[in-house]
Amino acid sequence: MTMPRPTRETLFRYLPILTWARVYNRDTATSDLVAAVIVTIMLIPQSLAYALLAGLPAEMGLYASILPLVAYAIFGTSRALAVGPVAVVSLMTAAAIGQLGLSTPGDIALAAITLAFISGVFLTLLGMLKLGFLANFLSHPVIAGFITASGVLIAASQLKHIFGIDAGGHTLVELVISIFEHIGETNLITLVIGVSATAFLFWVRKGLKPLLRKAGLGPRMADIFAKAGPVAAVVVTTLVAWAFGLGDHGVRLVGEVPTGLPPLSAPSFDLSMWQTLLLPAVLISIIGFVESVSVAQTLAAKRRQRIDPDQELIGLGTSNIASAISGGFPVTGGFSRSVVNFDAGAETPAAGAYTAVGIGIATLVLTPLLFFLPKATLAATIIVAVLSLVDFSILKKTWGYSKVDFTAVTATIVLTLLVGVEVGVSAGVLLSIFLHLYKTSKPHVAEVGLVPGTQHFRNVLRHKVETLPGVLTLRVDESLYFVNARFLEDYVLERVAECEKLDHVVLMFPAVNEVDHSALETLEELNRRLAEQNITLHLTEVKGPVMDRLQRSHFLHDLSGRVFLSQYDAWCALKPDAPEGTEKEGVAAQ
Amino acid sequence: MTMPRPTRETLFRYLPILTWARVYNRDTATSDLVAAVIVTIMLIPQSLAYALLAGLPAEMGLYASILPLVAYAIFGTSRALAVGPVAVVSLMTAAAIGQLGLSTPGDIALAAITLAFISGVFLTLLGMLKLGFLANFLSHPVIAGFITASGVLIAASQLKHIFGIDAGGHTLVELVISIFEHIGETNLITLVIGVSATAFLFWVRKGLKPLLRKAGLGPRMADIFAKAGPVAAVVVTTLVAWAFGLGDHGVRLVGEVPTGLPPLSAPSFDLSMWQTLLLPAVLISIIGFVESVSVAQTLAAKRRQRIDPDQELIGLGTSNIASAISGGFPVTGGFSRSVVNFDAGAETPAAGAYTAVGIGIATLVLTPLLFFLPKATLAATIIVAVLSLVDFSILKKTWGYSKVDFTAVTATIVLTLLVGVEVGVSAGVLLSIFLHLYKTSKPHVAEVGLVPGTQHFRNVLRHKVETLPGVLTLRVDESLYFVNARFLEDYVLERVAECEKLDHVVLMFPAVNEVDHSALETLEELNRRLAEQNITLHLTEVKGPVMDRLQRSHFLHDLSGRVFLSQYDAWCALKPDAPEGTEKEGVAAQ
Repeated sequence: MTMPRPTRETLFRYLPILTWARVYNRDTATSDLVAAVIVTIMLIPQSLAYALLAGLPAEMGLYASILPLVAYAIFGTSRALAVGPVAVVSLMTAAAIGQLGLSTPGDIALAAITLAFISGVFLTLLGMLKLGFLANFLSHPVIAGFITASGVLIAASQLKHIFGIDAGGHTLVELVISIFEHIGETNLITLVIGVSATAFLFWVRKGLKPLLRKAGLGPRMADIFAKAGPVAAVVVTTLVAWAFGLGDHGVRLVGEVPTGLPPLSAPSFDLSMWQTLLLPAVLISIIGFVESVSVAQTLAAKRRQRIDPDQELIGLGTSNIASAISGGFPVTGGFSRSVVNFDAGAETPAAGAYTAVGIGIATLVLTPLLFFLPKATLAATIIVAVLSLVDFSILKKTWGYSKVDFTAVTATIVLTLLVGVEVGVSAGVLLSIFLHLYKTSKPHVAEVGLVPGTQHFRNVLRHKVETLPGVLTLRVDESLYFVNARFLEDYVLERVAECEKLDHVVLMFPAVNEVDHSALETLEELNRRLAEQNITLHLTEVKGPVMDRLQRSHFLHDLSGRVFLSQYDAWCALKPDAPEGTEKEGVAAQ
Repeated sequence: MTMPRPTRETLFRYLPILTWARVYNRDTATSDLVAAVIVTIMLIPQSLAYALLAGLPAEMGLYASILPLVAYAIFGTSRALAVGPVAVVSLMTAAAIGQLGLSTPGDIALAAITLAFISGVFLTLLGMLKLGFLANFLSHPVIAGFITASGVLIAASQLKHIFGIDAGGHTLVELVISIFEHIGETNLITLVIGVSATAFLFWVRKGLKPLLRKAGLGPRMADIFAKAGPVAAVVVTTLVAWAFGLGDHGVRLVGEVPTGLPPLSAPSFDLSMWQTLLLPAVLISIIGFVESVSVAQTLAAKRRQRIDPDQELIGLGTSNIASAISGGFPVTGGFSRSVVNFDAGAETPAAGAYTAVGIGIATLVLTPLLFFLPKATLAATIIVAVLSLVDFSILKKTWGYSKVDFTAVTATIVLTLLVGVEVGVSAGVLLSIFLHLYKTSKPHVAEVGLVPGTQHFRNVLRHKVETLPGVLTLRVDESLYFVNARFLEDYVLERVAECEKLDHVVLMFPAVNEVDHSALETLEELNRRLAEQNITLHLTEVKGPVMDRLQRSHFLHDLSGRVFLSQYDAWCALKPDAPEGTEKEGVAAQ
């Protein structure tokens, strides 16, 4: 038996590298190399810091920034996305691993590797099944609320490093209580380093750029220099810690970091570990994908390029599998590093591969120098980075616009802060789906009449319109399906009971985009119950797809009245002075 | 401090008994008593059989048919509903208790009592919070599929009693395998009794009624006599078993049933038991409620009475609590017994209270006589009763009408049979919600044009219509919310990219019943991206509620084009020979 040879299209779909590698030339390579150098410098402290945030040894952050970048360069479709460890996913990794209650560093590392593996397999599968649309189940406000709440949690979780104390917890309350309990053990030198580094980094972010602009630098270069602030903080505090032997004064340092390229590693296949990590891995995958794809889409739009969300799933999936086999932890496309990559001129995903080489060199050369790096410095870089994610304005925006969105975002923020990241984001998703369904469960139904002198029908409560005697015309403003099927039947019968003398009920369906089998059954029941009261039921302005489906059922045959193409046709036919013509006409669809 | 005195309305809402008890008279009482006698005779074998099905001692079936009926008579709103143990709920009870892995009869009984208690509290709470609409999340096809599959499972679970063998299992495959493993141990006398009883009961159902009609009985009386068939089977087989001492020949009998009124009982408050039983209790409550309320609604409609679904929740909830405190198990309104009650002339819920007295007398007098009742007879009554529930036609109906409904019902049936009742019904509910959302995730969008000589706009692919040069008019056939927000943006931009020269995009919103915050953001983005290409975006036929909301945002202010009351207005304004007038007009809503 021979495998069917893959077609050219399939190859190009699954290996986007083929598209750009053919036209790769010296100019493109130069642009990519420059971008890679800048991103590498930025990524080294970030990688270390996010490993710390995830509760993992520092070197795992570097390992997660090598092979995953190569995998993304081969399988990803964004020209500018820079993958690696990111803040929110690292926080979720810490929460997931925390559930396992492990104590030895080796087990914890194995759990992180396994989490990356499960997440990678899940993302790749979603991509191959073209299920990228699943990410749409996260509404914008829920994402915004979740990222804001995560930012607050992450910042709070780093305070212990700033104070140099032992504190823990996965919720805001736990973190705050734990910090207060241990605040007496504060190491003053650590505090000074932490506060200075934080203040310095805030200044770099807010004050350095205008200064560099004044000094004559272009806006892009000024921005890139400002992004290198963390490197300066790392270098200076490391030198200080080394020079004054601060390790002996209780300042916690990164310590021994193994030198050398990442080791080959394999995930655990322990069933109970998979059971515990499965849901967190799914949530990490979806949150990571949503974050990554929105960055990729924003950057692609700026250069009028396109990304393919389903192939992005495969790109991120293989990156995570690559992370798992090279001693890393879950990765995704990061916002700030991708923007730096883009601004620095990266033209193809090859820039990512060059960055991987840069980080690889760092693991070979720089690791001994990291011994004296204070953890407080890394915490400061995290705090400053995540506070830029914190934006509570989504609460105000949704409050004014939609109480449903406001409820979903509030629940997401409160539950993320007080119960945890997984509960928070799950509750946000489920609540927004539930509230959406709830809204449709009692649809808006308007009695309508003719706007004089036109053929238009409008709500009798909002406009001056004419109605016909003995005719009740209701416009149904919702698709009809199982959740609201019963409501419509009850509503129409109630309205009918209120009317003195009624011969016709006309249901206007311009906004009915679906009639499912449950709704079909209630329409049949409604038709029967109205016929018992000698009331004829008519439909008007039924949409094409809905009409196609109704024609496959018995309903149109049993319907006591007619289906009119337009509401105006119904008006003309049901007018008291209308010419006789009660036999059923051929039905027509919009 | 004094409690505020409840208003008259509140009292009447929560105690429907007050409504009918005032006008209760001798005639009504006579009708109710006659109905009660007939239902009592029918309920005795049913109660015993469903206790057996639930894996509980026979007397618990009787206990579950006394106090719950009194509670429903006080709190229920249906005049004809007869509550007690029913087939599907008993099957679900067996499955729920099976998960606890208990072995002693006392523990199993306590678990059933606890299940009834949790279910009762849950239903009562739902009723007090007026959350009856939650039952609408079960679509009609899912319910139909679930009941059909449950019927098959129940019949299969009773075969062991017909063969007189030990067999078990909660799924169809387990049951079939287990029966084949033990078929060699078949007790031939049991098999003869079981098969004869089953054949007799089928004949009673199909053949007796026509016979009685021929003999001159009215149709209602003939029907009621036919429903008494199980009692005849019980009496005859009990006498046979007693006369020939069949118990000594390996025929399993009901055996010792304690004599006396139900004991006072209390649920367990063991936390781990509650954790295991919570989800099953919720599912049992919702399935029981849906089944009960649909029977109640059907019967109420026949006499032009109304039932109040929220008060029904309280009626069923208190019935289950009553069952829990009197040694019973979960109950709900049963279909066949309610129809018998209705046909026999029950006029008020008092008929239920009289039935309770009847069953109470049975526990005092009849229980010794049940010793010789073969279990095979009870199994036969169950098999014949549930096979009438089995109706696979829902598969054919939904296949022709809607593939989405077909998928949901198929999943429900297959999973119920092969995995279990809880997984089956949960999957049905979740799948129908997911598929509904999925359908709305890629909305139907039609390009429309003017039907010549009218003011109507129709799909260019379905009708002969006119379009304007440089204008793309799209009718969006779906509410816009987070799941499809992104789709619309991509779709419109793609369509725009296909057009040669475009000045205006008009989005027609007659079927857009909602624009949530996520969709608002994409509309803003779309407006911005189109403006970059010098294309003006207009909206037409925006519904009142949607317009109200858009006016609370910045979108209408930023919109490059206008909002037209009708699509025809937009046509007139955008026609090449239209008079100039490009300044933004006041927006108007439907």
